[in-house]
Amino acid sequence: MIIVGELINASRKPIAEAIRNNDASYIQQVAKDEHMAGASYIDVNAGIFVGEEADYLKWLVQLVQAVVDGPCCIDSPDPKAIEAALAVHKGPAMLNSISLEKERYDAFIPLVSGTAHKVVALCMSDDGMPETAAARVKIADELINRLVKKGLSLDQIYVDPLVQPLSTSDIYGIEFLKAIEMIMDNYPGVHTMCGLSNISFGLPLRKFLNRTFGIMAIDRGLDGMIMNPLDKEFMASIIAAEALRGKDEYCMNYLQAYRDKLLE
Amino acid sequence: MIIVGELINASRKPIAEAIRNNDASYIQQVAKDEHMAGASYIDVNAGIFVGEEADYLKWLVQLVQAVVDGPCCIDSPDPKAIEAALAVHKGPAMLNSISLEKERYDAFIPLVSGTAHKVVALCMSDDGMPETAAARVKIADELINRLVKKGLSLDQIYVDPLVQPLSTSDIYGIEFLKAIEMIMDNYPGVHTMCGLSNISFGLPLRKFLNRTFGIMAIDRGLDGMIMNPLDKEFMASIIAAEALRGKDEYCMNYLQAYRDKLLE
Repeated sequence: MIIVGELINASRKPIAEAIRNNDASYIQQVAKDEHMAGASYIDVNAGIFVGEEADYLKWLVQLVQAVVDGPCCIDSPDPKAIEAALAVHKGPAMLNSISLEKERYDAFIPLVSGTAHKVVALCMSDDGMPETAAARVKIADELINRLVKKGLSLDQIYVDPLVQPLSTSDIYGIEFLKAIEMIMDNYPGVHTMCGLSNISFGLPLRKFLNRTFGIMAIDRGLDGMIMNPLDKEFMASIIAAEALRGKDEYCMNYLQAYRDKLLE
Repeated sequence: MIIVGELINASRKPIAEAIRNNDASYIQQVAKDEHMAGASYIDVNAGIFVGEEADYLKWLVQLVQAVVDGPCCIDSPDPKAIEAALAVHKGPAMLNSISLEKERYDAFIPLVSGTAHKVVALCMSDDGMPETAAARVKIADELINRLVKKGLSLDQIYVDPLVQPLSTSDIYGIEFLKAIEMIMDNYPGVHTMCGLSNISFGLPLRKFLNRTFGIMAIDRGLDGMIMNPLDKEFMASIIAAEALRGKDEYCMNYLQAYRDKLLE
């Protein structure tokens, strides 16, 4: 499982405060904690600071990479903000996200064409949010084909089929899960990646629902997740699910996690 | 989810003792507890009592049905013991289980032909235990076809694809899950049913692994389970998984379970 640590997001109050107060050490501690807990990418998001997003993203990238030997996931719908952050990022980053919305697509594509960056390809188009698995796969197919034509390998592409709240339609869970399976089956080598928490919007016990949905998504082949790697119960579920899914030879990772007391 | 309460099984020490001591009230309390907790069938198993199994099964069936207004799942590899228990069972029972092993099959088939009983069809043959999903489906196909020819409807058939321990092979989880999906997709109307706990044999934190595997199996379409309905965490996982799978209109069952404090 490729884990993107989601905590350095300005929509979270302590992060917004740390950004406002120039509290570098708090940000860096969160980055180190996420990295230690197993995050391969540290998400940075400063979306709430309109007009200052680009500057803050640059600052966050530099802070994180000063203490973590690894890449960031630069998380913004604004290609200009991503471009600014990329200018200071060391090595290939993950960019979150391109979509099939024409304006976003056109501005985004020069940032990734011919690069080694990873890119999250969000299943969204100018026709709105897809409802069914088939509608998701149609957008994914178009995005994958276009990105490959621009020189990206399938391994650089992380399709996000877009989680929608179960509370608004009974089918949103199952259609998302089917989309994961179809994408992973039809494009061997591509990745899937998403944040799961939207599934539980409007329902009680969100963490419990998110975790349960995460297990189902792993069962369908999901191999990337934007999540809180400090959530021990969620991490334990991921480790167990991957073993049960046959992705953990001799259950060695599961057994090691058990010995390290990560599972209880 | 059709739940078969597994607790009245003589391989469990308190039940073996209750049987030996003729402790009817203990057995009846367990049956009532399982029923209250959501079991549609109360499993009765007296397999450890060689030579007395038939008599004890009869006794258990009568005890259970004296306090629970519902059917038993009569659980024995011995058709003669099942026949004895059926003689005192009120209404259609569930019989656990027929298989493709010739001797067992031949002795079992007269018990179910032309009846309204439900039957668990275990994916096992004289060639041994199936390793792959395809091998499981091949046995399931043969059993389903034969049972339908004997007058059973698909709704009476509960295919058990046979869970094998993950600790003995990395593929046993995924091949089981694939089998569930193939059976549910290829024979609309048939049920699948199993005990999941064998998956975690030889591994630590068995309950946690069983629960995680249960969520994955529900995701693949499993609609029956032999389990402990008093295991609150497992029941909560089932309720959440079914909602996420789109089997709970407007999440009404999930929300009701939340209000009833069944989820935490």
